[in-house]
Amino acid sequence: MPIPESAEGRRIYEEDRAHVFHSWSAQNALDPLVITRTEGSRVWDADGKGYLDFSSQLVFTNLGHQHPRVVEAIRDQAAALCTIAPAHANGARSEAARLVAERLPDGFDKVFFTNGGAEAVENAIRMARLYTGRYKVLSFFRGYHGATQQAINVTGDHRRWPNDYGASGVVHVHGPFLYRTQFHATTEDEERDRALEHLESTIRFEDPDAFAAIIVETIPGTAGVMPPPPGYLQGVREICDRYGIVMILDEVMVGFGRTGAWFALDNYGVVPDLVTFAKGVNSGYVPLGGVGISRPIAEFFGDRPYPGGLTYSGHPLACAAAVATIKAMVDERAVEHAARLGEEILAPGLARIAARHPSVGEVRGLGAFFALDLVKNPVTREELSPYGSSNAAIGAVLAACRDDGLLVFNNYHRIHLAPPLNTTEEEVREALAILDRALEVADSYVETSAGGTRDEPVLEGVPA
Amino acid sequence: MPIPESAEGRRIYEEDRAHVFHSWSAQNALDPLVITRTEGSRVWDADGKGYLDFSSQLVFTNLGHQHPRVVEAIRDQAAALCTIAPAHANGARSEAARLVAERLPDGFDKVFFTNGGAEAVENAIRMARLYTGRYKVLSFFRGYHGATQQAINVTGDHRRWPNDYGASGVVHVHGPFLYRTQFHATTEDEERDRALEHLESTIRFEDPDAFAAIIVETIPGTAGVMPPPPGYLQGVREICDRYGIVMILDEVMVGFGRTGAWFALDNYGVVPDLVTFAKGVNSGYVPLGGVGISRPIAEFFGDRPYPGGLTYSGHPLACAAAVATIKAMVDERAVEHAARLGEEILAPGLARIAARHPSVGEVRGLGAFFALDLVKNPVTREELSPYGSSNAAIGAVLAACRDDGLLVFNNYHRIHLAPPLNTTEEEVREALAILDRALEVADSYVETSAGGTRDEPVLEGVPA
Ligand SMILES: Cc1ncc(COP(=O)(O)O)c(C=O)c1O
Ligand SMILES: Cc1ncc(COP(=O)(O)O)c(C=O)c1O
Repeated sequence: MPIPESAEGRRIYEEDRAHVFHSWSAQNALDPLVITRTEGSRVWDADGKGYLDFSSQLVFTNLGHQHPRVVEAIRDQAAALCTIAPAHANGARSEAARLVAERLPDGFDKVFFTNGGAEAVENAIRMARLYTGRYKVLSFFRGYHGATQQAINVTGDHRRWPNDYGASGVVHVHGPFLYRTQFHATTEDEERDRALEHLESTIRFEDPDAFAAIIVETIPGTAGVMPPPPGYLQGVREICDRYGIVMILDEVMVGFGRTGAWFALDNYGVVPDLVTFAKGVNSGYVPLGGVGISRPIAEFFGDRPYPGGLTYSGHPLACAAAVATIKAMVDERAVEHAARLGEEILAPGLARIAARHPSVGEVRGLGAFFALDLVKNPVTREELSPYGSSNAAIGAVLAACRDDGLLVFNNYHRIHLAPPLNTTEEEVREALAILDRALEVADSYVETSAGGTRDEPVLEGVPA
Repeated sequence: MPIPESAEGRRIYEEDRAHVFHSWSAQNALDPLVITRTEGSRVWDADGKGYLDFSSQLVFTNLGHQHPRVVEAIRDQAAALCTIAPAHANGARSEAARLVAERLPDGFDKVFFTNGGAEAVENAIRMARLYTGRYKVLSFFRGYHGATQQAINVTGDHRRWPNDYGASGVVHVHGPFLYRTQFHATTEDEERDRALEHLESTIRFEDPDAFAAIIVETIPGTAGVMPPPPGYLQGVREICDRYGIVMILDEVMVGFGRTGAWFALDNYGVVPDLVTFAKGVNSGYVPLGGVGISRPIAEFFGDRPYPGGLTYSGHPLACAAAVATIKAMVDERAVEHAARLGEEILAPGLARIAARHPSVGEVRGLGAFFALDLVKNPVTREELSPYGSSNAAIGAVLAACRDDGLLVFNNYHRIHLAPPLNTTEEEVREALAILDRALEVADSYVETSAGGTRDEPVLEGVPA
């Protein structure tokens, strides 16, 4: 990134470099963009250059930036009462809990609030262990659940590796993902059946009576927006029921409208035992996450103390932002809008793009949540950049997007489009046009020597 | 608590009971106080009854409730820019990092922000493990470090027990605490020397080359405000140096003025390698915590990626509140005021109270941070309520305080006074008068049959 030209921008840049230790990074290599203004689906840097924000930052500004009703609610709550300890009762907290519970499946009455996604996962796993009296947890490769010790150890991407300190009791399996099948499957049905067979057989060899929980992202997000084949999550539910295992759906990234439904689980008609959420619950305006708790587990802790907590559980400012976010989403029909954007603009638009660019191996997604799986060889499906890393090719594609004014979410060789739910059709078309141009850069890395013809790019996502 | 009489209060109460799952509690037993207004060192319930808040909630509203400058800063930041992802640079974030770093010991330039204390501890331990290439962590009984998996497993109070799932590599030792000595010591110097000997000998028997970190609360807070004897923390520093162990001081509760110094470590002239903070950094108005990182550890992650992160690291709204809090603390000399309150009002006032009440076994503390160790037998020092629990006696004392309009922090048999730093002398005197009356209830539980005379209550705290 060019260092900002404005004096104020430069001061922020230098103060950042001197004092801010950044997540997931080698600190010397950083060259952050100084963002000084945000609105709706756009952000501006210190020199006034604007960008369409199709990252929603880390896929959390579900209502876009600076939504007036949410801003106003935060300002009002700040003026009235910023903070109060978790032991007390407070109007913002209890209303937020009710509004979240009302959107969860029947039988989810209670909500335990945290500051973010990792803490939600930590608490869901604690609840499952105490409720079952068991210890092992099953999770999935290509899953991300946060970076505190328990959360990073159920995570199934390479960020776990340097954090893998004696986390006994976590077992990882492969989930269904036809484009890069682990199961030698050729159809979604076959992928589903074999993935379920693999899951159940692992549990049987690991001791079914040892498992407290299966935790899975309803639609794995960071690892590539992989909607499960129809029936897969029902199959997981049946396995949980068969062996007395708590089913935890991690909806931190996909909850609150991201997939064109309030929760992604609504797309599949599956009812888990615990739901973790964060991000979209208040568009990330104030740190908030939580666990939705089904009745039997909530009742288990009725007369028995729940041995977990945190100083800011149910923080009034964060909860006031959640109340305003949920109400605005309802009034503005943001979830329905996201569903339509996905079906009518993003899915067909990305299908056309995929047809034009050999670097696009597959497009996956629904709602306001899509990924392009970029390859350097469409026949072998070899990724444009290696697993757990980046390279010049993906760097050049991202730079091309940014130069043209588009921010996307990137993970390894993939580009994700996750705009705010209330992004306009015109903004989506503008973004797709930028992406279309940037992918020419990706195409230039495609091995032209690759013999044979590739399969047609597949468009997956909308569940049957 | 009586259920609120006002319709609005009752609605909040019922919505809370129906939908909010509370920290550290059996859910059916809860009877929360509905708080609807807060200001300075006071809060009001839904029926308008006022309370002096000498808990600072969970010891975090260091500038009191609704400080106008902090409220204004949050409102301004909300109007300007609520949120931005950690990868970008932002003015509120970088200024907060600089202001925190400037108050840490020389050589602490960089700050990694989290949402709260547990995540700060998680990240500090991760840094220490990667920096040293070692695994074991030493911590202390009677310590509290948060409730995520790594944080709860270094915790040394009974809240760890139900969370103790295969946390290999954590070793707990006893710290110095003369009033309830583990070392058969009779003086502070003897307690210090024996506690250091115990620490070092444990490390030697556990393999000195295996230890990544020693984590210790500079002044253990939740477990009873136990200022270490002069020289103890220096001794820990020497042991760390001798064996190449990272020294982590947990200043989540004691940082940002609580003890009459910016950080509690300033009272002892000791320089650790990592400092965890949260709570007071922005008076808890928006969830925020973090790790202060000394240069060698920050540089270790200069060219090597740091494998940790979170969605809301350096949240602009939280950081704007920190900037305003720190500046207001400077301008209003809040830290100096807290030191004076401790020396001139709280210490002598509590000494007089201790002399009058046989139920007060010991008073400990400094600044705006004191504990009364309540006993049912001043000779044997048997606690008023058993470890890890409460009983009718302590419940009656707390109820007496509350009925008279005083909220205190309670942990087992202890009452902690931790008012906002800017509490007035008059408010402190008012609180002490209420406490004086309430302790008559505690006295009524003292075993009069206890033969012999007790030691005079000791007043400990201000470090030499
Ligand atoms: C599915 C999922 N779970 C958990 C998390 C962790 O959330 P946080 O970063 O707020 O701790 C994330 C973050 O991206 C996520 O996508
Ligand atoms: C010393 C100390 N460390 C860590 C924590 C955990 O902080 P949090 O509740 O914000 O996770 C606390 C909370 O009281 C604390 O007192």
